[in-house]
Amino acid sequence: MTEVKKPDRKAMEAASYRWNHIAKPLHGLGVLEEDIIRIAGMTGDPDVDLEKKAVVIMCADNGVVEEGVSQTGQEVTAAVTRNFTNGNASVCIMAERAGAQVVPVDVGVADSLEGCGRVYPLRSCKIMAGTRNFAKEEAMTEAEARAAVQVGIGQVRHLKETGVRIIATGEMGIGNTTSSSAVASVLLGKEAAEVTGRGAGLSDEALERKIHVIEKAIALHRPDWRDPLDVIRKVGGLDIAGLAGVFLGGAMYGVPIVVDGFISAVAALTAERLCPGCADYMIASHVSAEPAGEMVLNALGLKPVIRAGMCLGEGTGAVAVLPLLQMAADVYRRMSTFQENDIEEYEEFSHA
Amino acid sequence: MTEVKKPDRKAMEAASYRWNHIAKPLHGLGVLEEDIIRIAGMTGDPDVDLEKKAVVIMCADNGVVEEGVSQTGQEVTAAVTRNFTNGNASVCIMAERAGAQVVPVDVGVADSLEGCGRVYPLRSCKIMAGTRNFAKEEAMTEAEARAAVQVGIGQVRHLKETGVRIIATGEMGIGNTTSSSAVASVLLGKEAAEVTGRGAGLSDEALERKIHVIEKAIALHRPDWRDPLDVIRKVGGLDIAGLAGVFLGGAMYGVPIVVDGFISAVAALTAERLCPGCADYMIASHVSAEPAGEMVLNALGLKPVIRAGMCLGEGTGAVAVLPLLQMAADVYRRMSTFQENDIEEYEEFSHA
Repeated sequence: MTEVKKPDRKAMEAASYRWNHIAKPLHGLGVLEEDIIRIAGMTGDPDVDLEKKAVVIMCADNGVVEEGVSQTGQEVTAAVTRNFTNGNASVCIMAERAGAQVVPVDVGVADSLEGCGRVYPLRSCKIMAGTRNFAKEEAMTEAEARAAVQVGIGQVRHLKETGVRIIATGEMGIGNTTSSSAVASVLLGKEAAEVTGRGAGLSDEALERKIHVIEKAIALHRPDWRDPLDVIRKVGGLDIAGLAGVFLGGAMYGVPIVVDGFISAVAALTAERLCPGCADYMIASHVSAEPAGEMVLNALGLKPVIRAGMCLGEGTGAVAVLPLLQMAADVYRRMSTFQENDIEEYEEFSHA
Repeated sequence: MTEVKKPDRKAMEAASYRWNHIAKPLHGLGVLEEDIIRIAGMTGDPDVDLEKKAVVIMCADNGVVEEGVSQTGQEVTAAVTRNFTNGNASVCIMAERAGAQVVPVDVGVADSLEGCGRVYPLRSCKIMAGTRNFAKEEAMTEAEARAAVQVGIGQVRHLKETGVRIIATGEMGIGNTTSSSAVASVLLGKEAAEVTGRGAGLSDEALERKIHVIEKAIALHRPDWRDPLDVIRKVGGLDIAGLAGVFLGGAMYGVPIVVDGFISAVAALTAERLCPGCADYMIASHVSAEPAGEMVLNALGLKPVIRAGMCLGEGTGAVAVLPLLQMAADVYRRMSTFQENDIEEYEEFSHA
């Protein structure tokens, strides 16, 4: 794939200079200050503007649910996707408060999705009606996986054209913690048991089955960890591929992309492995309750700011961090400097 | 002091029931769900409404700055307090985005504070022009400490009367990490060195001096750890006393009070020690960069949701969590239930 442009060092230095000269304790907003500096580097502009926000939600089904790895049936993917278009899902309610547009994308729901609402129109980009069951066959062909990645890239291009300055990521797909754990296992070189969790509440027995399904699938398809596209097409999902495209799009078009929980982080890792340097265009939000969520963020070198044991999915964690980033951007843009305030500037100004 | 009323168990059960029946994974918003349930218990009403918010900022000076324990002079307390009234401080900019009213309170600034602005009018409740230098004498008399606590209680009563539903806490006072570490050392029974940090950037040498000043003051005044008022009047500050009053007021009037960073947490611990059960009316926000911040939250049994290495003060951490609580309250109030959504309800509904 294409080579990733390095973040703009001059813009980052200018942003860093501004933080250090406004009238507040040095590094007082911690990771949020670093995030604003990094965003300046991504966009090449120290005048960081995050007013126009969006959350892109990749919706897709996973054939592997046939194996009993989830507690709800596949029909829930379609039901919740419809809910996104009606503005009724949890993420929609949170996005409203955060001032973010919701962009639900059908990249592979196993349903015709008739009767969707118009509050947040569905982007119909269906590659196929869900992946094949990777316990038995490869989830996708290479062409299908590439097409799903392109869907994600296209969303970023389109949103950037409409003036969106930061994009949160989300997903909906029954069975997608199974595909994500499978991909994480291969990309991180960890045992399936280390990177597999209960989703939103599997029993001990069901967790054992989930781990076993992942181990068997990896043994069957032998995905090549050096070839991320091979990994996601064999044991991944269309939502992961679509989100990997969103992260690639962020790096291509200089738009900050906010990582959500475990599934989104696995897509982010896939993108970074496809195009090293891509992580420079990612902002971490929260550490999910899934055990491997933090491992993947660490592998990407990203620093989350929320640790609240959230595991709702839909992009809710990424949307939750948007007001924090916005508040930091407001302080960055609007706070006066020491000079303007007539307070003597100290090398290390402290309130305490 | 007065006995604390237990949170309303019925309201908490009703809130818990609602969370478990709306169409999303169980416990999907993690600690934020627990916070909403706890708030229902505090107010006695499962119809949790957080629309009207405020941040109370206790401003006061500390005589101990004479000992060279801070990097900036005492005049910065007055300068930043004026900035609050003009709406120009970091916390004001963040509070605007969070939809919170800023309430700067002069509980003991060593300045006449003429020329304050009108954006957020100063509440003039000065008990004295800063504490006495506790390296040499007791910081306050018992009467002075009690009066400062009353100021905090009064703010909560007044804000509740104007319809405020949740109050974030903040402080401004050069030298107040020194007084906070001294109080934390006594109340937690820890060595001064364990609970003393660099504020926003003391050198190694200055940190040593700060620890030494605290050790000497504790040896000199021998504050009684079983008598929290004795502790804060001897080695605490007017801002700590005022904020302790805010926490007591929260318990008295059934208003949730949001803990900010280290100083606010020390005030919260003082309140809990004065009136056991008071912590039931507190919500944690973030873990500050000061080393003892987390220790104090643990002693209170509170769960923070933000870990971003923030150390700005002014109440910025407490204000940062307000949009997260508001988003959780929105989901709690507005999300439809499984029945309304026509999705079959599972014992443990999962998206994944």
